[in-house]
Amino acid sequence: MKTRKTVMMFALGMAAATAFSAQRDEPIQPLVAPVVKEPAKVELGKKLFFDPRLSRSGAISCNSCHNLAMGGSDNLKSSIGHSWQEGSINSPTVLNASLSIAQFWDGRAADLRAQAGGPIANPVEMASTHEKAIEVLSSIPGYVAEFKAVFGRDGIDIGRITEAIAAFEETLVTPDSRFDRWLQGDDSALGKRELAGYDLFKNSGCVACHNGAAVGGNSFQKMGLFESYKTANAATGREGVTGKDADRFNFKVPTLRNVELTYPYFHDGEAATLEQAVETMGRLQLGRKFSAQEIGDIVAFLKTLTGKQPTLDLPHLPPSSNSTPTPQPFVKK
Amino acid sequence: MKTRKTVMMFALGMAAATAFSAQRDEPIQPLVAPVVKEPAKVELGKKLFFDPRLSRSGAISCNSCHNLAMGGSDNLKSSIGHSWQEGSINSPTVLNASLSIAQFWDGRAADLRAQAGGPIANPVEMASTHEKAIEVLSSIPGYVAEFKAVFGRDGIDIGRITEAIAAFEETLVTPDSRFDRWLQGDDSALGKRELAGYDLFKNSGCVACHNGAAVGGNSFQKMGLFESYKTANAATGREGVTGKDADRFNFKVPTLRNVELTYPYFHDGEAATLEQAVETMGRLQLGRKFSAQEIGDIVAFLKTLTGKQPTLDLPHLPPSSNSTPTPQPFVKK
Repeated sequence: MKTRKTVMMFALGMAAATAFSAQRDEPIQPLVAPVVKEPAKVELGKKLFFDPRLSRSGAISCNSCHNLAMGGSDNLKSSIGHSWQEGSINSPTVLNASLSIAQFWDGRAADLRAQAGGPIANPVEMASTHEKAIEVLSSIPGYVAEFKAVFGRDGIDIGRITEAIAAFEETLVTPDSRFDRWLQGDDSALGKRELAGYDLFKNSGCVACHNGAAVGGNSFQKMGLFESYKTANAATGREGVTGKDADRFNFKVPTLRNVELTYPYFHDGEAATLEQAVETMGRLQLGRKFSAQEIGDIVAFLKTLTGKQPTLDLPHLPPSSNSTPTPQPFVKK
Repeated sequence: MKTRKTVMMFALGMAAATAFSAQRDEPIQPLVAPVVKEPAKVELGKKLFFDPRLSRSGAISCNSCHNLAMGGSDNLKSSIGHSWQEGSINSPTVLNASLSIAQFWDGRAADLRAQAGGPIANPVEMASTHEKAIEVLSSIPGYVAEFKAVFGRDGIDIGRITEAIAAFEETLVTPDSRFDRWLQGDDSALGKRELAGYDLFKNSGCVACHNGAAVGGNSFQKMGLFESYKTANAATGREGVTGKDADRFNFKVPTLRNVELTYPYFHDGEAATLEQAVETMGRLQLGRKFSAQEIGDIVAFLKTLTGKQPTLDLPHLPPSSNSTPTPQPFVKK
């Protein structure tokens, strides 16, 4: 009986899906799967994203801190860099990062291409240099041929490296969440509690910053409006980029897409659970003390933002050659 | 003209392929793709293989040192463990590891299942404990359900964890190398130099140890027969397992499958290139000083052992729950 009912509901759902007249008019828009225009560049970028040879140790790749098996993040409070150095800030997810107004918590990189060069040369992260990364890739015949095929002529430079990585990252969009299906008119996609959570998310003011297709990522806001935020983390946010005192503790509003997967939360990773994050945000940003019931409702809504993660074949990286510089994990500079 | 010739040769090759009467009678046998009997167990094992939550830091997975993007190895002389500790021995490839007589360089684990539990609890590697790993996985609803589905009843224990990982690893076989195609009767699969290299590989005695489907992996041999091997590495090999003095410096003969991808070589990772490895092996194990020409021939043959690596969708790991123990990358014990 239960099976039959499920089948019927499924059939009705299908019928309804074809009959959806229009997208709902909401402050959040559904994610749209990107059209891949340059598949060869994306494939090269995927290889580079997974290639630990871009790091000094030969062991840290983009995927180390933006792990695509784990929602594009490392799920650590702060990341582990070269020689096990502790990163200064929580690694944001790479999923849907292309939709952000700028990259990094302080927005110091205008776009994914500008971002991609940063960690390679950051001594606390991959601890290589752009020159060394180019030397390494240029010594690998498989890469030399692939860069040539993608860019039309010989040569590997940091512009091409970051362009390919960014092209890959632009494909990392997660459409088709239950919330998106609801946005597209499918009433059955959300349950009562999830809808109540979304109503509260809108009515209490969360949506003022967490809106748009990425449910965030499109503005900088001060962390700590109604109360100041207490943290041992030294980051001062946007101030470091603009030099303006008014930008102190202004951080990029993170996307809430797949937020169920991207714990822990905030730039300092101090909120271990979604419940803590919602409670703190309500108090600090909205001057509101959410009840346990309200927090549960909002969390239920947030979990409907988990979309379809990209299916990725793990790339087979081209082998080094005899002239490839040896990784230096244990050699002191 | 060249194109036409290539097409014709290809067509002839195809015709020949269908006409191959019998496999050649050689001391090396072709790899056979494994038949996956328990796909759900393999899929669970793949998730565990890629899951860094099996480590104390939340950052090191099986794939960190046996990177399936890099021939199943980390391509480092010695691996990087918890807190950036330096491993004591070169990480062997996981590709075709199921064909080995035993696991680890000293063969201290009888099989892949026995091996898989080692690194999790090794304080220099993943630095967790079996108890902690079970606690972590048991706190993740996605895993609880998947273990139940795979094993038929509730419960996660180290036996099931390692059984699933081993089931996945058993699928990591790389058939269809050019050498295998030649073994199967395709004369066009190898060039003249490669065949000369194989002849020399047989006639000079390399094949005495590097034989069978894995071209090695099926015996323990003393490193340094004609000359003793000079190394700063402290490993004494099989002696540590058997307690017998005669087993001092006896190591498992490594597979040469995909050896082009699994640099650097030897248990201490001291041979950076295949050329160095062949030169040293000739001198130490065969009492023979290969000429540069001979080394080049053997290396050309060895590169024909690169097979078809498994195509793997990167798994999407089930998210932690609020009760999952927090990873401890920077907390001292």
